Amino acid sequence: MIKNESDILAYIQKNINTTSKNVIKSIGDDCAVIKLSTNKSLVITTDTSLLGPHFTKNYSPYEIGYKCLATNLSDIAAMGCKPKYLLMAITIPKLTDAWIKSFYKGINQLIKKYDLTLIGGDTNKGPLSISFQVIGVNNKKILYRKGAKINDDIYVTGKIGMARAALLLSKNKKEYNVLKKFLHMPTPRISIGLAISNIANCCIDISDGLAKDLQTLMSQSKKGADVFIEKIPTHHVVKKTLTRNKYLEALIEGGEDYELCFTSSKKNRNKIKSLSLKYKTPITIIGTVTKSKIKYLDNGNMIKLNLKGFDHFSK
Amino acid sequence: MIKNESDILAYIQKNINTTSKNVIKSIGDDCAVIKLSTNKSLVITTDTSLLGPHFTKNYSPYEIGYKCLATNLSDIAAMGCKPKYLLMAITIPKLTDAWIKSFYKGINQLIKKYDLTLIGGDTNKGPLSISFQVIGVNNKKILYRKGAKINDDIYVTGKIGMARAALLLSKNKKEYNVLKKFLHMPTPRISIGLAISNIANCCIDISDGLAKDLQTLMSQSKKGADVFIEKIPTHHVVKKTLTRNKYLEALIEGGEDYELCFTSSKKNRNKIKSLSLKYKTPITIIGTVTKSKIKYLDNGNMIKLNLKGFDHFSK
Repeated sequence: MIKNESDILAYIQKNINTTSKNVIKSIGDDCAVIKLSTNKSLVITTDTSLLGPHFTKNYSPYEIGYKCLATNLSDIAAMGCKPKYLLMAITIPKLTDAWIKSFYKGINQLIKKYDLTLIGGDTNKGPLSISFQVIGVNNKKILYRKGAKINDDIYVTGKIGMARAALLLSKNKKEYNVLKKFLHMPTPRISIGLAISNIANCCIDISDGLAKDLQTLMSQSKKGADVFIEKIPTHHVVKKTLTRNKYLEALIEGGEDYELCFTSSKKNRNKIKSLSLKYKTPITIIGTVTKSKIKYLDNGNMIKLNLKGFDHFSK
Repeated sequence: MIKNESDILAYIQKNINTTSKNVIKSIGDDCAVIKLSTNKSLVITTDTSLLGPHFTKNYSPYEIGYKCLATNLSDIAAMGCKPKYLLMAITIPKLTDAWIKSFYKGINQLIKKYDLTLIGGDTNKGPLSISFQVIGVNNKKILYRKGAKINDDIYVTGKIGMARAALLLSKNKKEYNVLKKFLHMPTPRISIGLAISNIANCCIDISDGLAKDLQTLMSQSKKGADVFIEKIPTHHVVKKTLTRNKYLEALIEGGEDYELCFTSSKKNRNKIKSLSLKYKTPITIIGTVTKSKIKYLDNGNMIKLNLKGFDHFSK
């Protein structure tokens, strides 16, 4: 019986051809990887954004355009690659001048920032839906979800928890106004992804929440992790405003921050410290890779989490 | 003011970066083309299919899966290229075992036939929408919409008019049952596209109707055409059943046949005749490329057509 996304994936992997000679990575990572020549590959990703699960009515068209592209770019960042080319298939209910212009301006902010080229697309009339496809190229090494080594440090870029906290605090006007930008306009970590690509052992972007994404990273690497909750970097408003339980929910379960979570050998600590300074972005050690099992510790005390993963069909 | 698809395209081309060093063809052809090395390029296309404009409630899920992919493959065929890799972003209202399996079986028919690899995708819950991205590679020469030369023969593959005729005859059970398969399950002309790639001067797939697509071919080539209506190949049921006006509508305005329309020098007639035999598919001369203007002639008499192009936002 096909009941959820995992069942669809399992059905596809059993019944449909997903591998061939030059496919280095197929379904199951942030991007697919196709080998072009000995030292050259391309990475490609597609993601659809919909009203409801991905953005809500209080997003401006600018923010919708921006976020839909940012989340796709984040998948390229998680592979340690540079985004280059873009296709977009959009379905919109009706054409209004102001909406279209604002929407494309949001997209164009990222196209300019990352020097991308829009090479194709398709436009239809219907319920709002935006699918991007981004093609990237590898710089040094491509990063996968698999590859963590025992005793690696576990890092996160930036700060996390703000996107979920914005949702939890949507009625607290003051706090919501501070946190909203993290939910509506996340920063894809392209430069850091490229910079860590030759020193990280594995990487994922935190779109479904730290718990689920770290679980994916460790299960693909066949490793475990000790996570030190007190070290997870977040915004002071999140820390100050939420109750203990909501705070943990925002930090550990909350998705949509689009920061990178990666592991690297302890010998790279200084290098990573300088990258953090260079890119003016915190890159924080939040745990250690272990042999098996993922444990969450709060100042040394083990915490039991009752986690449910996000699935579009289980809501 | 942005009122239709052309206005969106014009807005994009004015405001957003659509060209860069290795982009041989950007927005405006059946596929985008990216140069990989001196002799190697890749072509990429994306198309979204929706309930309403692209398929209706009387399509089986098998037919929906098949057609959505077939129409994307047709874009690769029109470039004279070989499809290789596939990504799909689908949004479905609810999961039912039977629907999903039948849908993927339709897709898999084409994946197997053309030896494709499904390398990625995204699944969401919402109003039914299917976006494919297909990546292809060039065999010999890539075909563009631009390139027709004066005195070239104008060809169409297969027969056309059946898709529109099926819609026009949807209440005539007997005729509809004969024609339905052309509308629901068109054949992408991959082998012929590849075979003609080094002898054709330009090519397009007939998705919006012969009139509109030939118009695109000739305006991009800065040429005209004389089209001989009596030579346009169609199914005998179309010829026999439709009134004169509806017959012309099906043949000239009707889209969704996904046959190829291309031009080639008169010296290639024998080669093209043998390709027609080899692939057991009619490849018929329907006209001649001229200096300017497109004329439709019926046994020598010029016909005036009152054509309206298809636009998703003008309905």
